[in-house]
Amino acid sequence: MSQYHPVRFVDVRLEGDFWKERLETVLAKTIPSQHQKLGEYGILGSIKLPQPPPPLRFPRHPNGFTVQVFWDSDIGKWIEAASYALSHRRDAQIEAKIEAVIDDFEKAQAPDGYLNCWYLGREPEKRFTNLRDNHEFYNAGHLLEGAIAYFETTGRRRWLDIMERYLDCIYREFGPNSGQKHGYDGHQEIELALIKLYHLTGERKHLEFATYLINERGRQPPHFFDAEREQREAKGIDTQRYVYPNYEYSQSHMPVREQTKVVGHAVRAMYMYTAMADLAAELNDQGLKTACETLWNDVMVTKMYITAGLGPSAHNEGFTFDYDLPNQTAYAETCASVALIFWAQRMLHLDLDGKYADVLERALYNGALSGLSRDGSHYFYANPLESNGSAERWEWHTCPCCTMNVSRLVASVGGYFISTSTDGLAFHLYGGISSTQTVAGTEVRVRETSNYPWSGAIAIEIDPATPTAFDVKLRVPGWARTHSLAVNGEKITAAPVNGYVTVRRTWQKGDKIALDLPMEAERVYANPGVIMDIGRVALKRGPLVYCVEEADNPGGAVQRLKLPRDAALKSSTRTDLFGGAVTISASARAIEPGDFRELYRTSPPREAEATMTALPYYLWANRGKGSMVVWIPEA
Amino acid sequence: MSQYHPVRFVDVRLEGDFWKERLETVLAKTIPSQHQKLGEYGILGSIKLPQPPPPLRFPRHPNGFTVQVFWDSDIGKWIEAASYALSHRRDAQIEAKIEAVIDDFEKAQAPDGYLNCWYLGREPEKRFTNLRDNHEFYNAGHLLEGAIAYFETTGRRRWLDIMERYLDCIYREFGPNSGQKHGYDGHQEIELALIKLYHLTGERKHLEFATYLINERGRQPPHFFDAEREQREAKGIDTQRYVYPNYEYSQSHMPVREQTKVVGHAVRAMYMYTAMADLAAELNDQGLKTACETLWNDVMVTKMYITAGLGPSAHNEGFTFDYDLPNQTAYAETCASVALIFWAQRMLHLDLDGKYADVLERALYNGALSGLSRDGSHYFYANPLESNGSAERWEWHTCPCCTMNVSRLVASVGGYFISTSTDGLAFHLYGGISSTQTVAGTEVRVRETSNYPWSGAIAIEIDPATPTAFDVKLRVPGWARTHSLAVNGEKITAAPVNGYVTVRRTWQKGDKIALDLPMEAERVYANPGVIMDIGRVALKRGPLVYCVEEADNPGGAVQRLKLPRDAALKSSTRTDLFGGAVTISASARAIEPGDFRELYRTSPPREAEATMTALPYYLWANRGKGSMVVWIPEA
Repeated sequence: MSQYHPVRFVDVRLEGDFWKERLETVLAKTIPSQHQKLGEYGILGSIKLPQPPPPLRFPRHPNGFTVQVFWDSDIGKWIEAASYALSHRRDAQIEAKIEAVIDDFEKAQAPDGYLNCWYLGREPEKRFTNLRDNHEFYNAGHLLEGAIAYFETTGRRRWLDIMERYLDCIYREFGPNSGQKHGYDGHQEIELALIKLYHLTGERKHLEFATYLINERGRQPPHFFDAEREQREAKGIDTQRYVYPNYEYSQSHMPVREQTKVVGHAVRAMYMYTAMADLAAELNDQGLKTACETLWNDVMVTKMYITAGLGPSAHNEGFTFDYDLPNQTAYAETCASVALIFWAQRMLHLDLDGKYADVLERALYNGALSGLSRDGSHYFYANPLESNGSAERWEWHTCPCCTMNVSRLVASVGGYFISTSTDGLAFHLYGGISSTQTVAGTEVRVRETSNYPWSGAIAIEIDPATPTAFDVKLRVPGWARTHSLAVNGEKITAAPVNGYVTVRRTWQKGDKIALDLPMEAERVYANPGVIMDIGRVALKRGPLVYCVEEADNPGGAVQRLKLPRDAALKSSTRTDLFGGAVTISASARAIEPGDFRELYRTSPPREAEATMTALPYYLWANRGKGSMVVWIPEA
Repeated sequence: MSQYHPVRFVDVRLEGDFWKERLETVLAKTIPSQHQKLGEYGILGSIKLPQPPPPLRFPRHPNGFTVQVFWDSDIGKWIEAASYALSHRRDAQIEAKIEAVIDDFEKAQAPDGYLNCWYLGREPEKRFTNLRDNHEFYNAGHLLEGAIAYFETTGRRRWLDIMERYLDCIYREFGPNSGQKHGYDGHQEIELALIKLYHLTGERKHLEFATYLINERGRQPPHFFDAEREQREAKGIDTQRYVYPNYEYSQSHMPVREQTKVVGHAVRAMYMYTAMADLAAELNDQGLKTACETLWNDVMVTKMYITAGLGPSAHNEGFTFDYDLPNQTAYAETCASVALIFWAQRMLHLDLDGKYADVLERALYNGALSGLSRDGSHYFYANPLESNGSAERWEWHTCPCCTMNVSRLVASVGGYFISTSTDGLAFHLYGGISSTQTVAGTEVRVRETSNYPWSGAIAIEIDPATPTAFDVKLRVPGWARTHSLAVNGEKITAAPVNGYVTVRRTWQKGDKIALDLPMEAERVYANPGVIMDIGRVALKRGPLVYCVEEADNPGGAVQRLKLPRDAALKSSTRTDLFGGAVTISASARAIEPGDFRELYRTSPPREAEATMTALPYYLWANRGKGSMVVWIPEA
């Protein structure tokens, strides 16, 4: 099988209702409101060097307000998100704002190329003394991704030039040679950004530095972070200022190829695995590929929420131990699900195995998308699977990483739908896109039309410029119990191989594919190792995980509702909900608090008949405060 | 009804197996090992002024190690606990250690009486500038309680003299007069200690200052903590050093008489309510009494764990909102249950209503006693009601408040068993005690013999020096569905009034009371407002709440076990467990992880028949790590 590669996000037009609405919201609401918040919170001000305005004080915030080491990255991610959005519809105002930021970075950049505004604005003499804690490469990575996206959309390369100068500065200081520091960042990110830059420019030095960072990570003794700390101590720099939990936190406890268990900070882990999978493909590195597969299995079999949320613990913003998936206190950071999508996409292109696309889709429609409100300007940083009613979306966050992660995802979602190889075209996601790609030497215009994720009835038109033979690979999702397929009305019976049905023929203008993936509401049970979910059941339909929210189930906390195992599940299209959504309802039992006055008593509470209505999880918390469960007690 | 008063702890001898074992463990193991830990952790060193040894560093502790503002209190509580223990059996070695501590405090005391070693050893010029955060009165209160206990046991008053000098210093600086600071401590404690001192010495100034502190608390504007902060800011002292959550945290958000909801830090709240109830009794203050009753009801109806644990949240070490009683993350600090015992005892002596004794007993046998290991040298600070197997007892804690709170409770538990009035003798707890008290002018020797809490068969001998008429009040616990009572073999039929049966007669030497309180294992259900416990059931027998622990239920996490509502509960005396304990067992259903390989699937896990064995909660986590639940899923 020839290798499949992702297409450029700018070459895919979103036409289906589901994603078009989200994209328009991000374009019209999210991108402008994020720029406004970046200003209000002093983040845009912090790069106005050499004299940034004094940091704002927020008296109601318990620690007042301080300049954060990661603010450059937030600006980089905003530009990246805005650039993706601009590829759908150019907007001079937004472009002017981006140019203004580039002006500031250009002025801030040191003569030798160094460009980190936190250090430059506060203690420039300490630059590159604490990669463990202070995110210099992480920031550079996000700035670089922003510069690449902006170049891809606009063709303007001023910022890319700035970033290449900064990279040269980094490459002089760090690397494998004697006289260089042998190190890497505490927060992985730059690795995957460098590979993007390599793909854009073809310059191998970027690929080589990414490879160096991955291979260097976790080597010991001495551990780079120890060596770095000893150097600080020798110079009397910041000896009491920083405390570090452990090297698992940053996945630097052992060389990455030896790692078999997913540990530590979830976003760091996902960004690193993404780069590892990228390098496995670029370098045909079987060791890295095997490590990725082992780590993937560890996540999938013991550590992923049903929503594709990752990282149960707020303590380390990350992973704990097998089957530890608490619902109400789930951290499940939006960024981690977004980053899981990156990793899954890389794994998918290593092997074109639908199991990766299944996870990509699960994360996209559930754990990631839940991070953005319907109005496009409120967010979840943590995405719990249960709420007592106290969880609310934030207008902003002191660490606003998730806000721009979800906007850059939505604005670039078209890039995940299809892939091409020299000899084929693969459909991974459905939902209404059109694109023109070169396949087997011919320009092929494709259009996929569907009401996905609400319906699995999918129509595809394949229009090659001239009749041409190539593969069309159609993903049959893991959730689909059956499927039916026809080309130009002629039924094709083929079992999916690794999650894809392949149709090879000489395609001609006007060829039509009809794929039907029947969607039924279904029950899901968790492995009993997940002690929190024992005796509970979740509902799903197609790629969507459902939740029971108080807004649809008034009368008290939804935790009072129990779903009998034999209750029929009914799907209903509700045009009154969020512009159209499919709910699942069922007969249920409700615990009645009515006669229970005391806190404890020896007789059980009464139960009554009730109806339960479940809503797609990604839509929760858009109608004020209220209780919510994903895992419903079974009667 | 004449007023009942607690008896002195030194006048009650513990003879029953249950408490004798605990007392002996505290005497022989806990008190000495706590002294050793106080030394190892630098706490005893911190009072060696003017030149304390440098604080120890614990590299594995994330914040290294610092001298804590509350260390004086830990020493005070250790002396208090040791003094109670010494009243049972004097020990020259322990007394020498206490005397050495008193030597240090005597040397540390400033000429004007001031005595807080944290300030004296670090920044004496800042004393009394931050009562909100730095616990000066709190420390004084615990030191004072230690001094009182040591005096009561030994008759030595050197330390009491030291403390009275310190109090005079405080009384000069703080109070209602002009020229004095109008304030109180962020952490209540001294109030109840001052009332103890008043009881000991009869000096009204102590009662008056306690009254002043209670009445002053929460008055505004200006709020004392604001005024204090403004003074610090005017002097440029510590302007950036401290951050305060809110005034609810320290129950100073409004005057205490106006408070109707239990809020904030649980231990602070309980200590304050204890002092409020004390003052209500001393001053016959109906306003304070009503406030106490309102707050009591708030706790009982919406905020108490079944174990009498208090304060669900680690965030504020305290209360959140109604019915918020999470099990696995329950904070339920040992100190809070100990302090609830103090408060319940005060409420009981305001009204002699058994509902207060019921809570006292529930806290004593469950939420408080669980804080101390069987070996007497390991502790729980938090007392969760569920564990995934990761919870373990601590050898020590950076904030060791709970360790000495549980030891001082156990060493003084005799003081909670009985009370006297001018005309009567009341039995609140059972478990084997003897005491000689003066009742109705006559010396009366009493002995209560039972195997409580394992059995409710209770025998009491009443031996007055001369035949005398007085009331004997016998508590019939709220958990008892029936009771039977006989005096000298003659059955007495009387329904309890407010939880007590009163037997009035002319008592003669050799009179014998037989009280039988049949104990049956029972199910308990939580109010459905407690969403975490919906669909779950707890087990209790007599005063003991039970838990299901992995050590008795091998084969995986106990969360897999479900108890059918109709399964019979069987009580068994198990001499092989912890020197004898009654377990509860039942037929149950067990979820079988066997065939469940994936993380999620659409078919439910298999179930099988199983036996479930439950152990008294206070005994949990004494056999290594393992999962535990109090609230068992119902099948």
